[in-house]
Amino acid sequence: MTPERIARIQERLSQANADAVVIAALSDIRWACGFTGSNALLLVRRDAAHFLTDGRYTTQAAQEVQGIPRHTASPDLMRYAVEQGLLDGVQRLLYQADHLTCAQLNAYQALIPDIEWIGVENWLCDLTAIKDETALSAIRRAQTITERVFEDILPLIRPGITEQELAAEIVYRHLRMGAERMAFEPIVASGPNSALPHARPTHRAFEPGDVILLDFGCHVDGYASDMTRTVVLGSPAQVVKDVYNIVRTAQEAALAIARAGITAAELDRAARSVIEEAGWGEYFTHSLGHGVGLQVHEWPRIASNNEQTLPAGVVVTIEPGIYLPGRFGIRLEDLIVLQAGGHENLTQLSRTLLVL
Amino acid sequence: MTPERIARIQERLSQANADAVVIAALSDIRWACGFTGSNALLLVRRDAAHFLTDGRYTTQAAQEVQGIPRHTASPDLMRYAVEQGLLDGVQRLLYQADHLTCAQLNAYQALIPDIEWIGVENWLCDLTAIKDETALSAIRRAQTITERVFEDILPLIRPGITEQELAAEIVYRHLRMGAERMAFEPIVASGPNSALPHARPTHRAFEPGDVILLDFGCHVDGYASDMTRTVVLGSPAQVVKDVYNIVRTAQEAALAIARAGITAAELDRAARSVIEEAGWGEYFTHSLGHGVGLQVHEWPRIASNNEQTLPAGVVVTIEPGIYLPGRFGIRLEDLIVLQAGGHENLTQLSRTLLVL
Repeated sequence: MTPERIARIQERLSQANADAVVIAALSDIRWACGFTGSNALLLVRRDAAHFLTDGRYTTQAAQEVQGIPRHTASPDLMRYAVEQGLLDGVQRLLYQADHLTCAQLNAYQALIPDIEWIGVENWLCDLTAIKDETALSAIRRAQTITERVFEDILPLIRPGITEQELAAEIVYRHLRMGAERMAFEPIVASGPNSALPHARPTHRAFEPGDVILLDFGCHVDGYASDMTRTVVLGSPAQVVKDVYNIVRTAQEAALAIARAGITAAELDRAARSVIEEAGWGEYFTHSLGHGVGLQVHEWPRIASNNEQTLPAGVVVTIEPGIYLPGRFGIRLEDLIVLQAGGHENLTQLSRTLLVL
Repeated sequence: MTPERIARIQERLSQANADAVVIAALSDIRWACGFTGSNALLLVRRDAAHFLTDGRYTTQAAQEVQGIPRHTASPDLMRYAVEQGLLDGVQRLLYQADHLTCAQLNAYQALIPDIEWIGVENWLCDLTAIKDETALSAIRRAQTITERVFEDILPLIRPGITEQELAAEIVYRHLRMGAERMAFEPIVASGPNSALPHARPTHRAFEPGDVILLDFGCHVDGYASDMTRTVVLGSPAQVVKDVYNIVRTAQEAALAIARAGITAAELDRAARSVIEEAGWGEYFTHSLGHGVGLQVHEWPRIASNNEQTLPAGVVVTIEPGIYLPGRFGIRLEDLIVLQAGGHENLTQLSRTLLVL
C-alpha cells in the first residue's frame, strides 16, 4: 500500500496535471519518507515512487524508508534514475524551482531533454507545515531543552563574561541535554549590540545595566525549537522598562487572536499596531514571525504582506521587537501551534522582565 | 582606485566578453570585498562595481567594504539595483548558475528581461582558492584551535562516555578558544560506527578496544580548519594496526608528491594505489580530499577524475580512509598548502597510532 504522504503528493500531481515530481529538498524528503541522511532524491510518479541515495546510506535508508522501492545509486542519482527507466513515460515533470540551482536543473535537463520540465515553488510547504503528533512531540522536546538551557545560563550572566563565552555555554548545554544540533548560531547580544536583530556573539563583556537579548533553538528528531528572551543586568533604565512592556503588550495582542483561520497579515498587524500606536513603529524592523518545523525558518512568513490563511496544526513564532540603534533592543519570541479557535503556546517561559 | 580583487573580476568579464556579473554567493562576496554579513549582492561591471545589502548591515558594510559604492536596499536588492539604474547599458550579464536557484534567476530575469543572461559555474573558484597571507594566517589559527581541542579531549576518551557527549566537549572547547563556529558537525564515530565515513554522533558509549574516528574543524576570521585522526581505546587488534599503517602510508605517499603543478588525479592516485596494492581498494570509498578556505569544502576536489592542475597557494586536505562495514574504519586527514616544489603541512599532529 502506498504510504500516506506519498499518496498525498500523488494527489497533488493529479491536480497539477503532471506525471511526476523530482523532490530534492532534504527536509521535504524527510517529511515524505523519513530519510535523515544528507544525499537523496525522491521521484514520485502518479503510479509509483522511488527513493534514491548513495552507498554511504544504504543501511540507514533500509531502516528509515518503508513502503517504496529504495535504490543505491552512486554517484549521480538522476543519471541512475534515467538509466533504470524510473522516469520512462513521464511527459510533464515538476521540479522544485526554489530549491534546485540553475546548474542542477541544467544537468537534469541534459539527461532527460525531451519532456516538459515545470518549475514549482513552495509546492509542499502547506503540507509539511501541518504538524502531526510525532512532529509536535519532537518540537516540544526541543523547546524543553532550550528553555532548560535558558534557565541554566541565567546565573552565568554577570559583568565580565563575554557574549561569545555565554554562547559557548548555551551550545554546550544543548548538546549535553541531547539536542542533535543547534537550529542556528545562538544570538547573545548585549548593550548596544542588542539593537542589531541578527547580531553575532562578540568579545564584548557584559556591563552593569546592559540589556541582553538571547535567541536560540535546537533540533531534536529533526524538528526545531526557537525562543527569544531579553533580560537586564542590574537595574533597568525607565526607557528599557517602557519599551519592554510595549513589546510584551504587542506579543500578547498577537497571541490573543492567534487561531487557525486567521491570516498572517492579521497576526502581524495585531502586534505592529501596538508598537506603532506607542510611537515606536519605525523601530520594529522585521516581520512578526515564521513557521518552524524540520527547518527553523519555513513557511509561512508571518508578515504584513502575507494574506494567506493559516491552517490548524501550523507551528509559528510570534516575535515582535523594538531596536534603538546605538542604544538597545528588546525582542520576545514564543512558539505556538495554531488550533481551531485558539492556539497552544509551546513556550513555558515567563514574559516578565528578568532583572539579573 | 578600483580594489585589486574587483579589478581581477573585471579582467574576467573582459575575457568572457561580458558586460557585468551578479555575484550572489556570500563566500565570493566576502572574498571580493570583505563583507561578512548574511545578505548582499555584488554587481561588477567593466567600468564600476556596486555593493548592496539591507538595512540591518548598513553600519557593518561601512566598516568592511571599501573602495566601491555601497547601497542599502531593502528588501529586494536586485529590484533596487534596477530602479537605481546600476545595470543600465548591460547587454551580456553573467550569473552564478551553481549558486542561484531557478526561482531566484526567474525573479532576476523578470526584473531585467531584455538582456542576455549567461550562466557560469565555478567562475571565481580558482581565484578564491589561492590563499594570501591573511587567509593562511586565519587558517593556521583555526587549525591551531582544532589541534589543541584534539589534544585536550584525549583524556576524556574512556569507556562509558558517548559519542554525543564527546562531540559536545569538542564544540564547547572550540567556541571557548575563540572559534567563530564549527566548520561542520563534529564526527565522533566509535566501534562499527567508524566504518561510516559521514557518521553522526550517537548515544553509543565507548567500549574497550573501540576504534574511534574524530573529524572536526572550525572557522576563524571566516576561514576553516579541518582534521581527522583515528585513535584506539585499549590494545588494538592486529588488523586495526595493519589497516592504520596502510592508511598512513597512503597519506604519506600523497604528501610525498604534493606540490604546485601536480594534478588532483595524480594526488588521489598516489594514495589510492597504496591502498589498492594492499588489497583494500574497494574500502576506500571516497575521494582523497578537497579545497579548504572560506568554505570548508570548496574547489578543487582531489579526486581520481579531476585532471585539473593545482596552483601554488591552494589549501587542500589529504584524507585517505579504509572502511570495513560492521567492523571499523580508519581515516587520517592533514591540511596542506601547495607551493612550488613542495608544500607546507598546516597540521602539526603526529600520525602515530594513539592507543588510549
